[in-house]
Amino acid sequence: MSDDFLALRQECLEANKQLPQFGIVDLTFGNVSVLDRESGAMAIKPSGVAYEALTAEDMVVLDVQAKPDDSYTLDLEKATLWGKLRPSSDTPTHMRLYQAFSNIRAIVHTHSRNATVYAQVGKPIPCMGTTHADYFYGEVPVTRPIHPEEIDRHYEWETANVIIERFQDLDPDQMNAVLFHGHAPFAWGSSGTKAVETAFALEVIAEMALKGRNLSPQATPLSKAQLDKHYLRKHGHNAYYGQP
Amino acid sequence: MSDDFLALRQECLEANKQLPQFGIVDLTFGNVSVLDRESGAMAIKPSGVAYEALTAEDMVVLDVQAKPDDSYTLDLEKATLWGKLRPSSDTPTHMRLYQAFSNIRAIVHTHSRNATVYAQVGKPIPCMGTTHADYFYGEVPVTRPIHPEEIDRHYEWETANVIIERFQDLDPDQMNAVLFHGHAPFAWGSSGTKAVETAFALEVIAEMALKGRNLSPQATPLSKAQLDKHYLRKHGHNAYYGQP
Amino acid sequence: MSDDFLALRQECLEANKQLPQFGIVDLTFGNVSVLDRESGAMAIKPSGVAYEALTAEDMVVLDVQAKPDDSYTLDLEKATLWGKLRPSSDTPTHMRLYQAFSNIRAIVHTHSRNATVYAQVGKPIPCMGTTHADYFYGEVPVTRPIHPEEIDRHYEWETANVIIERFQDLDPDQMNAVLFHGHAPFAWGSSGTKAVETAFALEVIAEMALKGRNLSPQATPLSKAQLDKHYLRKHGHNAYYGQP
Amino acid sequence: MSDDFLALRQECLEANKQLPQFGIVDLTFGNVSVLDRESGAMAIKPSGVAYEALTAEDMVVLDVQAKPDDSYTLDLEKATLWGKLRPSSDTPTHMRLYQAFSNIRAIVHTHSRNATVYAQVGKPIPCMGTTHADYFYGEVPVTRPIHPEEIDRHYEWETANVIIERFQDLDPDQMNAVLFHGHAPFAWGSSGTKAVETAFALEVIAEMALKGRNLSPQATPLSKAQLDKHYLRKHGHNAYYGQP
Repeated sequence: MSDDFLALRQECLEANKQLPQFGIVDLTFGNVSVLDRESGAMAIKPSGVAYEALTAEDMVVLDVQAKPDDSYTLDLEKATLWGKLRPSSDTPTHMRLYQAFSNIRAIVHTHSRNATVYAQVGKPIPCMGTTHADYFYGEVPVTRPIHPEEIDRHYEWETANVIIERFQDLDPDQMNAVLFHGHAPFAWGSSGTKAVETAFALEVIAEMALKGRNLSPQATPLSKAQLDKHYLRKHGHNAYYGQP
Repeated sequence: MSDDFLALRQECLEANKQLPQFGIVDLTFGNVSVLDRESGAMAIKPSGVAYEALTAEDMVVLDVQAKPDDSYTLDLEKATLWGKLRPSSDTPTHMRLYQAFSNIRAIVHTHSRNATVYAQVGKPIPCMGTTHADYFYGEVPVTRPIHPEEIDRHYEWETANVIIERFQDLDPDQMNAVLFHGHAPFAWGSSGTKAVETAFALEVIAEMALKGRNLSPQATPLSKAQLDKHYLRKHGHNAYYGQP
Repeated sequence: MSDDFLALRQECLEANKQLPQFGIVDLTFGNVSVLDRESGAMAIKPSGVAYEALTAEDMVVLDVQAKPDDSYTLDLEKATLWGKLRPSSDTPTHMRLYQAFSNIRAIVHTHSRNATVYAQVGKPIPCMGTTHADYFYGEVPVTRPIHPEEIDRHYEWETANVIIERFQDLDPDQMNAVLFHGHAPFAWGSSGTKAVETAFALEVIAEMALKGRNLSPQATPLSKAQLDKHYLRKHGHNAYYGQP
Repeated sequence: MSDDFLALRQECLEANKQLPQFGIVDLTFGNVSVLDRESGAMAIKPSGVAYEALTAEDMVVLDVQAKPDDSYTLDLEKATLWGKLRPSSDTPTHMRLYQAFSNIRAIVHTHSRNATVYAQVGKPIPCMGTTHADYFYGEVPVTRPIHPEEIDRHYEWETANVIIERFQDLDPDQMNAVLFHGHAPFAWGSSGTKAVETAFALEVIAEMALKGRNLSPQATPLSKAQLDKHYLRKHGHNAYYGQP
């Protein structure tokens, strides 16, 4: 990859532009980052810029290994490898997640409305059907609320740590999304486009779970056998969905 | 019909392209097949291909009479009469339904959101009004959940068998749709276009039934007399809706 | 008005074309008629024709004074003054309403989703706010269910009679809409465009009333004083909304 | 600013045209005004004119300091500084709010559907998540119902007074919106565009709060610490969201 990170910025740009196309962002409530694992360079949307106006020139590229210092200050300007704009205010969350989840290559954060409803009330999204099972291997988890002292220390950095804590017994390669309590969803994947697709699928299954809950509060989740079948026919070694 | 099944593939293409136009599919969660009853050739959407990109060249044509062998393997490649892509993963479900329901010529499978909500909670859609009665002669049935041993044996083939079991006392020519428990709806009809229209009507009546249920859980279904009137003024010998 | 009813058919065409623009019809579930009170000619949409394809040539013009004979047969072909297509199957409902409500000049029938939900569960739409009060002077009424013998006698004609019965103590000039129990809404007004606007406002207030009911079942309707204020600042002698 | 108030009318026009683009008005249920604090000239949308047709020539400019006389008559024609059309019927509400809230420069009134649902049932919108906290510093308040004698005296003027009463212990610079009981929302800000953005954010958070309430009635609002964090990272001296 050349010095100007053009391919990385392009992938990041395209994924960010997909957010309004999929109808999963309002205003500027969302961002996508993409990581080049080899060089450790992470491209991310600039803060508070409208999606329509975005160009590859606006993307900001940072060192994914940056960390807060002893006084919990994370100097994003110092960590910037390329770009003139201020990166998304959620940048430290993205960095920390990449550091902890070693296989993921792209992260999407949105406030997509139905998934955010689950985050706001602090409930996981149960796996009620095969649409869910096609994307998520079980219920989509919700974190605990973030503590005031974590907010004080370094809000965006600790946001990632709260997610990581929630994944102690979960595999981020089989569960590609999380709901942050009181906030909104994060999703990830092997490319910008895949992560956005997952964020969109999350919104769809949240809408259906929510309506199903209103219709029939006592309905039971999908059987383990059918969850396995659907998840595994799309993911893993024996997948037979899509073209070879 | 000529050897290359062009007319059949065209009809199948057009019906598949209607799915996003009607807003009843997200991503690639849906497919339409069309059957030529005379030759036994069935055209279906390829697996996991985006609707916008589809062409008649992408359709796959299979022998509708194909069946699993003694070890429950259904060799779709062997059953393919035309086409280079892998057919929809739901292909065996379509085949088996055509074999059992002898009048239908097209099948539509979607995960349209409101109909899927009913499928996910395992409830039939009650006939609450004339919009429903214009399309479906009574409540739209839901299947039982599929058993783990059926999933193991041959998931997509047994999916059809679960539907067929549900129709033991129902006439598929008067009830053109079913909700598969934990999964999503299937609809059918005399042409690709008609089956898609039915799948769309199903989504509309599901939305209205769901909202009505929230508004007034104790509301009663439409009277038998009004159901008869609406269904029969659009269907059957004395229909007087539409142009002659 | 000339013999070919061109102006009337044009007004009728334009109003019908507004239905999909306002998002208040799906498929062909809706129709508008317009009446020339002087000549007694009523133009209406043909049955089962898609809105996009409609032209002024497709409209059907009938004698608004037509009535069923002693055996309850209403010969629409005989009543047709102009046009080659079969008129909407709801034509007798429109005719009868014009005969009973002597000031109205246009009628709109839709299956707009939220208003239809209220019709399906047989509940009136309470006046919960000023949006409602701007259009409807009090709660929007719902009819009783139609009886089997009325369906047998002449379904579409008796549909109008059930509405007229509901308006015994209501003024159709101050309440421009009704919900037909188990069916869907009808709205009317002084022109095709105004009646469509009313049908759209009905859909909007139905959606808001429904959501408000879920949020707070015990919420009380708007005060009589505020209802009067809003309805009368837009309607009647002292109206001061809009341009003079 | 020149005598014809062109810049002010342009800003007002653009903000009004954003209302349908954001999907927060139906028909003509909404209006934006913009105030030039220096000259005391306030531009506002004309009454009952469709948004698509609006031009800068249609805007009406009035003296923001106009007040009702002793008989509670507010002569809008006399207060008009520029323009030929009748201003929005809500003009006195805008004037009075500008007189009381000394920092705001633009006011938006809509009947956006979900925010209006909260207004109709007379409930504030609780702060359930960070999307809310990014815009509103705490729950969005609802007024008491307006009294019949206030309606009689001067409806639109007293509407503002009821809002002002509600803000006795609230700071309109930190809470940029209010729900008028039985009516709909008002939002404001430092420019036409900002006020429209706030009105849109209000609609989004209303939709999510409403759905969350259905999903989990006992869910608790966001912590004070997280509310502070989100509101203050976007607003005030230490804001670090967006570009510097």
